[in-house]
Parts: sequence; C-alpha cells; structure tokens
Amino acid sequence: MRIGVVARLDVDEAVEIAGKIVDFLTKKNVETVMDTPLVEELGKKGLKKYKDMACDLEKMDMDMVIAIGGDGTILRTQSFINKKKIPLLGINLGTVGFLTEIDPKNAFTAINEVLSGNYFVEERTQLQVWHNNELHTALNEVVLMTRRPAKMLHIEIRVDDEVVEELRADGLIVATPSGSTAYSMSAGGPIVDPKVGAFIIVPICPFKLGARPIVVSNNSVIQVKLLREGKKAVAVIDGQFEEEINYMDEIIFKRAEDYAYFVRLTKDFYRKVREKLTKGGVSP
Amino acid sequence: MRIGVVARLDVDEAVEIAGKIVDFLTKKNVETVMDTPLVEELGKKGLKKYKDMACDLEKMDMDMVIAIGGDGTILRTQSFINKKKIPLLGINLGTVGFLTEIDPKNAFTAINEVLSGNYFVEERTQLQVWHNNELHTALNEVVLMTRRPAKMLHIEIRVDDEVVEELRADGLIVATPSGSTAYSMSAGGPIVDPKVGAFIIVPICPFKLGARPIVVSNNSVIQVKLLREGKKAVAVIDGQFEEEINYMDEIIFKRAEDYAYFVRLTKDFYRKVREKLTKGGVSP
Amino acid sequence: MRIGVVARLDVDEAVEIAGKIVDFLTKKNVETVMDTPLVEELGKKGLKKYKDMACDLEKMDMDMVIAIGGDGTILRTQSFINKKKIPLLGINLGTVGFLTEIDPKNAFTAINEVLSGNYFVEERTQLQVWHNNELHTALNEVVLMTRRPAKMLHIEIRVDDEVVEELRADGLIVATPSGSTAYSMSAGGPIVDPKVGAFIIVPICPFKLGARPIVVSNNSVIQVKLLREGKKAVAVIDGQFEEEINYMDEIIFKRAEDYAYFVRLTKDFYRKVREKLTKGGVSP
Amino acid sequence: MRIGVVARLDVDEAVEIAGKIVDFLTKKNVETVMDTPLVEELGKKGLKKYKDMACDLEKMDMDMVIAIGGDGTILRTQSFINKKKIPLLGINLGTVGFLTEIDPKNAFTAINEVLSGNYFVEERTQLQVWHNNELHTALNEVVLMTRRPAKMLHIEIRVDDEVVEELRADGLIVATPSGSTAYSMSAGGPIVDPKVGAFIIVPICPFKLGARPIVVSNNSVIQVKLLREGKKAVAVIDGQFEEEINYMDEIIFKRAEDYAYFVRLTKDFYRKVREKLTKGGVSP
Repeated sequence: MRIGVVARLDVDEAVEIAGKIVDFLTKKNVETVMDTPLVEELGKKGLKKYKDMACDLEKMDMDMVIAIGGDGTILRTQSFINKKKIPLLGINLGTVGFLTEIDPKNAFTAINEVLSGNYFVEERTQLQVWHNNELHTALNEVVLMTRRPAKMLHIEIRVDDEVVEELRADGLIVATPSGSTAYSMSAGGPIVDPKVGAFIIVPICPFKLGARPIVVSNNSVIQVKLLREGKKAVAVIDGQFEEEINYMDEIIFKRAEDYAYFVRLTKDFYRKVREKLTKGGVSP
Repeated sequence: MRIGVVARLDVDEAVEIAGKIVDFLTKKNVETVMDTPLVEELGKKGLKKYKDMACDLEKMDMDMVIAIGGDGTILRTQSFINKKKIPLLGINLGTVGFLTEIDPKNAFTAINEVLSGNYFVEERTQLQVWHNNELHTALNEVVLMTRRPAKMLHIEIRVDDEVVEELRADGLIVATPSGSTAYSMSAGGPIVDPKVGAFIIVPICPFKLGARPIVVSNNSVIQVKLLREGKKAVAVIDGQFEEEINYMDEIIFKRAEDYAYFVRLTKDFYRKVREKLTKGGVSP
Repeated sequence: MRIGVVARLDVDEAVEIAGKIVDFLTKKNVETVMDTPLVEELGKKGLKKYKDMACDLEKMDMDMVIAIGGDGTILRTQSFINKKKIPLLGINLGTVGFLTEIDPKNAFTAINEVLSGNYFVEERTQLQVWHNNELHTALNEVVLMTRRPAKMLHIEIRVDDEVVEELRADGLIVATPSGSTAYSMSAGGPIVDPKVGAFIIVPICPFKLGARPIVVSNNSVIQVKLLREGKKAVAVIDGQFEEEINYMDEIIFKRAEDYAYFVRLTKDFYRKVREKLTKGGVSP
Repeated sequence: MRIGVVARLDVDEAVEIAGKIVDFLTKKNVETVMDTPLVEELGKKGLKKYKDMACDLEKMDMDMVIAIGGDGTILRTQSFINKKKIPLLGINLGTVGFLTEIDPKNAFTAINEVLSGNYFVEERTQLQVWHNNELHTALNEVVLMTRRPAKMLHIEIRVDDEVVEELRADGLIVATPSGSTAYSMSAGGPIVDPKVGAFIIVPICPFKLGARPIVVSNNSVIQVKLLREGKKAVAVIDGQFEEEINYMDEIIFKRAEDYAYFVRLTKDFYRKVREKLTKGGVSP
C-alpha cells in the first residue's frame, strides 16, 4: 500500500503527529509520501530527513491519504485529490470531527488496523456548482452571501425548472448530507443521514418569517439567480474558496459525478451527532 | 371508467358538490358509486335518487375515487382504499390543500380533463407502523404523545439498529415527505420534496435545546421505545386513528409496500408550499 | 429563626436528606417543623422521632422553608405558602435547578451560612390567572392545551385590549421570566432575565409558520379566548394543577400582587442558563 | 407649528410626495423647511421654487419632522435629529413600516389631523454604544459581524458584570424593542412590545445548537468582547453606519439618555406585527 500524508500546518501538534505517522509507516515498509509544504514545515523544525518524500498534494497518486487536522483540513485535502478516488483517513485534532475518523491517541492502533485491511470505504455525495462556465465541487456546502455585512440578498430559487421561492435573506446555503451537520445546522437546517439522496437548501436569516429549510432530491437540478440590481454576492465553497456573483448571474447546483471516499473503521454518524448536540463542538 | 365519490359529511358544501358531481358523471355515462353515508346524508336533504348508488368505501373497487373536503378527508379516504391502488382525486374545500388537487370552481372542467385522459398519477410513499403485532399505514405522519397535556415522553430512537438519541420531549413525529408540509412543519420540521426517498423524525418541544429534526432514508428501519416507567403514550396515525403505547413498547417504522396514488393535472408542489408559507393555511 | 422542611416524597434520597437537615437544625436549636406527609414518610422508614414536628404545609408560619427536590417540588411548595411571603431555600436533587439554590453535598455548609445571616432574598414576579371567577397564581407558567393529543386550539390573544393574534396551535404558554428557562424554552421561547418586567407568550407548534414568541410588559393585561366551538381545553398551572376551559371562555393573565421569595447565596442565573444550554438538564 | 421635510432621494415617488406635502403645508401657512439634498433633487426635476427652504437636516430646529420613505429613511433621519427631541412623522413607501405611521394615500388627511393637534407622541428607548471612546446611538439595533462572509466571531457576553456566554457565531445582534420586529426577528429573536424595558441579545447562526435569544433589562449594562486573535469585526448601527472592531475590543451597550419621538395617530403595534407575520414585509 502507498500512503500520502497531509497535515494542518498552523497547528504544531498536527505537524508533529504527521512526522511520527510517517516514521511509523516507514518502519512498516509502507511506501509513503508527504505533502511538500509539510516537508518544509518539518524542515523548519530541524527534521530534514523527510526531504525526499515531498510530493505536491494535487499530484499524489496513492492508495490512501492520511490527513491530520480538523474537518477544514479534510475539506481542503479532498478538494485537491477530488477526481482520483483516493480514500481519505482523517485524524482529528479538533472537537467533534464529522469527516475525520480517529483521535490522535488511537492513531497508531487505527493505522495498524487499516494496514491489516480492517476498514471499509464510505462514499459521500458531492455537489457540483456551475457559475459562468466555471465548475466547482463541494463536499459540505456552498454559501451565497453579500459582500457587505448585514445586507440582504434577493434571490430566486428553482428546482427542476419549477420556481420554489423568491427570497430575501442574508444568504443561502446549499448543502449535502455531509454538510448538514456543519454550517447548514447553525443556520437552522435539519440533520440529514448520509444515506439520504438529497440536498438541503437553507436560507440564512430570511426576511420572510415562515421560510423553512427545503430538502430536495439529489437527482434534481437547483438554480439560484441574484435578482437585486447593483448588488454583488460571493459564493463560498466548503469554507475554502470564494467566487464573486453578479446581478442576474445564475448558479446551478447538481450532484457531482465524483464521490468523496473516506476510510472508516466504525459506523458512528449518530454518535457524532449526539456529541455535536450536547457539546456543541465540531472541529473548526 | 368507473368512479367512486366520497365527501366530508359535516360540511354542507361538500355534500352538495358531491351530489352535483355524481349528476355530472351520470350524464356523461360514467359508472358511478357513492360512499354509503354520503348517500344517507343526501337522503336527509331530500335527495333520494342516489339510493341505488350506495357502496361502502372499503368495498369500492373503482378506477378512481373523487374525494371532496380537505386534506383530512383525503387521509381518511386513502386509509380505506389503501391496498387497492385506486388513484384519488381531491376537491379542496379547505385553505391550502397539499393532497387535494382542484378547487370546487374548477371541478367540472377538471373532471372533464380527467375523463379525456389528460392527467397523470403521482405515487406517494407511505409509512408502515408495527406495534404489538398490529400494522397501520400512514400517508402523512405518526405522532407519539403523552395522554396528559404538558407532560413529557422519554424515548429512545434507533435507526438501522444504531441509537440515534435518547430524548425527552412532549412528543415525536415520524413523517413522510407528504407529511412534511403538515403537522411536522408546525413542530419545526423541514419541507421535504416528495421525490426524496426519506422519512423525517421531528421532536415536539424537546427538553434538550439543541435537538433537531432528522431526515433518514426511507430504506431505513426506525425503532422508537418508550423508556419512562409507568407512563403511557398514544400514537396518532394521520390525525385519524389512535393507539395506546405502553412502557417499553417498541414501535417500528418502515416504508410501506403500498403507495398512495393521486390524480394530478399539474405539477405544483412548490406553489402550494409558497401559499402555505405566506397564507399559513392548510385545509384542516 | 423558625424553619419549615418539605421534601419530594417519591425520591428516597430527598426524604433522607430532609431527616438529616431537621436533625442538624434541631442540634443548632432552630425551631423546626416538617410537612405532615414527610413526617409520615419518615415514620414508615422507622423514624418516629419527628412525630411532634408535623405541620401542614399550608399552615406553616415560619421565617423560612427549606424544600428538598427539584424545581417541581419548589413550584408545589410555593403554591402552598404563596401569600405568606416566606422565603424558600431549595435543595436540588435534579439536574439543573433554576429555582433551587444549593446541592445536597453543600447543604449543611449552606444552611450554616443562612443561619449566620449570609444570604439575600430574591423576589420573583408571579402570574395571576382568572378564569370563571377562579383565581390561580403561577410562578413559572400557565399552559393551555387541548385534551386530545395532536389536536389544535383556535384562540384569540389580546394585550391591553388590542388584538394581538388569532392563532391555531397545539397550545399556548404564558410564562414569567422564572418560567422562561422551563417549558417555555422547549417550545422555542427566549431566555428572559428575571430583572425584566415582562411576560412571555409562546405558541406551541403554531399552524402559521411565522408565529413568534411575544414578550409583553408585566403591567399589561393578557386575555385569551377559546374560539373553536365544541372544543375543550385545559389550563395547566406550573405543571401542577389542571383546570378545564370551555368554548368562548376567557382567561385573563395579570401580574400577581404576591411575589415568590427565594433564599439566595450567590447570583448565578447565567451560570445555570449555560448549564441548561450545554447539558440540556433541568430538574424534573 | 414649524415643520421640516425629509425624503428618500433614490425613490422618485418619495421626492414627488415631499414636494406636494411642502406645497400643502405652505398653503396652510405652516412654516416649512426642507432637507438641503431634497431641495437639490427637486431642483434637478425642474422645481426650483423650494430653493429658499433648504436647511441641513442636522441643523433643523423644528417642532416636527416629516420623513417620506421606509424604516431605513426613518432610522437615518432620527440619527441626525437625535438629541433635539423633535417628533418624527413617517410616511411609508415600503411594505410594512414599523417606524412609519401613515400611507401616502392618507398623507394629507393625516397631516391635517396632526395640524389640528389630534395626535400623540410615542417615546421609544434607544441603545447607546461605546467603543474606543466613540459613542453611537441606535434606535433599532447594533449588529456585530465578521468582515469576511461565512466566517465566525468568537465573543464573550457579560450582563451587569456577570458572564452570560462565550459564543461562536456568524454575528450578534443587540436590539431595542423597536428593533425586535426588524433584523433581530430574521435571526430568530422574539417580538418585544415597546412597553417592555428590555434589550434583546440574539446570536446569528450560532455554532452551539442550543443558543437562544436573551432578553435583558434595559437598566443593565451589556459588554461584548471579541476573543479570537487576529480577527476583525464590524459593528453596523441601525443598518446605516459601520465601525471596525479589533481583537479584545470591548463594546458597551446601555440605554441611551435620549429617546426617539414618533408622531402617532393610532395604536397599532400588533396590527403591524400581524402584517409582518403574514405578508412577511417590512419596508427596506
């Protein structure tokens, strides 16, 4: 098995664990590469021995990628390896991680299990977003908001060519089931089991008091248009990338052809939901 | 084509329209029967001519049933003809009817269209509920509540054998997408497009503040158990039937094998959603 | 100082602690009486020595009453001593107690502090409810609901003779700030600081989606009328007492002349709010 | 009586009505001045006759100011005449106006009534905001948000020196009762009757699911501190003015000494609430 290793660089603990995991994998004779900036970060800490393992994340062509950080790290990593069907194993340094699978303290036991083949790969549906001939893929959600704080968007939402609503709101979230436990939830969206073939449309601070989250089929095509003249908006994809939206622009949301693949040792979606509901924590 | 006619009996207008529709169908040489209590009600109004058309609803074996009333009338009628795959055409006397299709003022034009074959039949998923070897079918929702007002249930919810939550709440709703625009919505549930293969689990006034509606696959099995000793609950099926639930009883929810079938002239789910959101009305 | 002691009788721990507290007070030469049923319960456990201390709760004319249990016990005790301005000291056996002040493990230290005069008395506003010439007082809230589960009330709400809303809902809560962290909160009501001179009107599962909790002045008069013919409702006062409401009955809510008085050792309203928000617990 | 006239300049109808109202007042021999930019705008339309009536809004020292536009126009006008206790009469060109009093079609009848003395003046509490020795006054609300869309603030809230909550959220609203029917409501805040002496603290898209709006006394002092290093925020006052907030800055909210004064012909707070709840409209 060939494994790539990635880590959140602004958290020392993540970088250190990454080094230890690479040492562990090397000792086990696993072919291992590391994300180039991670090699540089370890170099700055005086650890030069990883120099020959450097490989750019987008060029990694491995059997598995181990990412150390929180859900943000996973989202970023996934966006780079998206088309390659490489399963991701997340090691969680945040509070509750919905996309990460294991805690640092169990990391080596867990990696041993994985090397022995005791794991399964879970497919997660992604969202494809078209805007001005540009195509993006989101694992969690796309958020449309105004550039100016506390100003409203005026948008029209269509599902399969039927007008759903004309809406004034601070913003709009279109989320996958994976994203249902992230930002969508803060805005009042329901929890959607990853087994449901659906997308969730959630208005942020809607002006019309009765406005509700809408769950639509992931076979549907969602079209959103910016109605208010002179206003600009921004689309934020998985909290990572921003793209400007102009008046009368149309944004089209569909199910992506590519899935995201996660290495899983146990089924525990609802355990995480319960933790999130009580502790209120998700890794940032 | 053979058509059965049913109406809400406590609303005079419904009974009168029923009579007119039967006259209209007879003139068109359509073989027509009427629900026995409706014949009796018309008899009380001095209209004896329908006497030979009487047929018990549960014995109706027709190509279509026309029901005049609100969504409650449709739910009740559907529960009687459930296993026979007879499409239902609802004529709406309430405010916004999600299950009814046409308004009284367009009734004759619409029925003409239907007789000419200009309609399609929409399938709606139903919920099967097992409790103490008894089996019920719900088109909209099943509500679990205490018998005593303002007292809490203490329940455990499992989905596909995984514990989802242990919950204290006034009650719990398990709804289909059809039911997502009915009682589930009042309790804070999302709108779920009928094309989504899902059920919705919505707590009523949950004690834990962070509790959220959960959308699960309609291929999943939902199990709900009453935990608090000495307490009794009641299950209300589609607002029509009640069944008592005892301590430690388990209620099992699955997708029903039988669908409900509705005669539709147009696609207008989201138009009705918009009306509900603004006018706040659904036929009671 | 003369002290009365009351306890929740269906929880053994409460009865035992009550005995120990009475022993402690007696040793300190404090004049002590006990609620008659508590003396009987201790008698059943073989502890006959409290026999001469028995006094009916409603006849207690002491300087302070110590109540052992949860917020329910406090509400019940308060309803009996309501007109006498006797400060209540609550010892909490539940999870988070908003009305109780101290935990069992700190009970004796706390009572010592109180005997030394190191405490203050907090006044809490109460709600007066008129219905059919009957007058009740509520410390937390009055809940109006239907007798039949999952059926709606149709009510009209007026504040200072102005119509606020005509509402269909499962029920209606009128709460004091004290009640804002209890049932009102489960139904979606805001947290209201006890220093605010206000009552909160919260619909339960309102049919109209935009319906919102309303905070009105506690100098206002709130009138609620049952509109739907043939339907009956029930008013539940502080979760303790029930009263039947008939069609067209009017219920009038005003600030009560009598306050409830609580013995307090620290200011900690928001600490309790934070505990409730995270742990989700309030003593039942 | 001396009257000043102000109007929203980017809406032609507002400017035209302003001209007609000034003509009407002049004919009635009322001493009238107009906001300088309004005179200029009318000049551009070829109406030069108002030239000598020009007076800067902040210098207006009249018995009453008539403002034509929506609630935004009222908020802006009020901010200029704030310290002068001049009652404002709002003529509404938006949908539902909570701060405006009359519709354009009734404008002349209403102004006649006012000239005859048939009106009363309603005082509305305002919020005073201190930040870096700068002092602002808000009639509706102050919103704290991040500069970057879809990023969270990390803040600490204290009320009367007691820590209320440490919160991660998209933003925070501190609103007056006047503001309770504006932005605060979109974010989930309760309706607060203007007679209640309270402020409302509402988190926007809070990360912790159980977070709730909090209603505190308007005698209380609210302190909000930005905790997350390196992050900046912005305070938006009545949707009109912005001020930058840095890490560890403290913002202090108190009741303002100055009230806002509105000319009222009828009591109709709840009628407007009902309109907002059903139509969902408030003038932008």
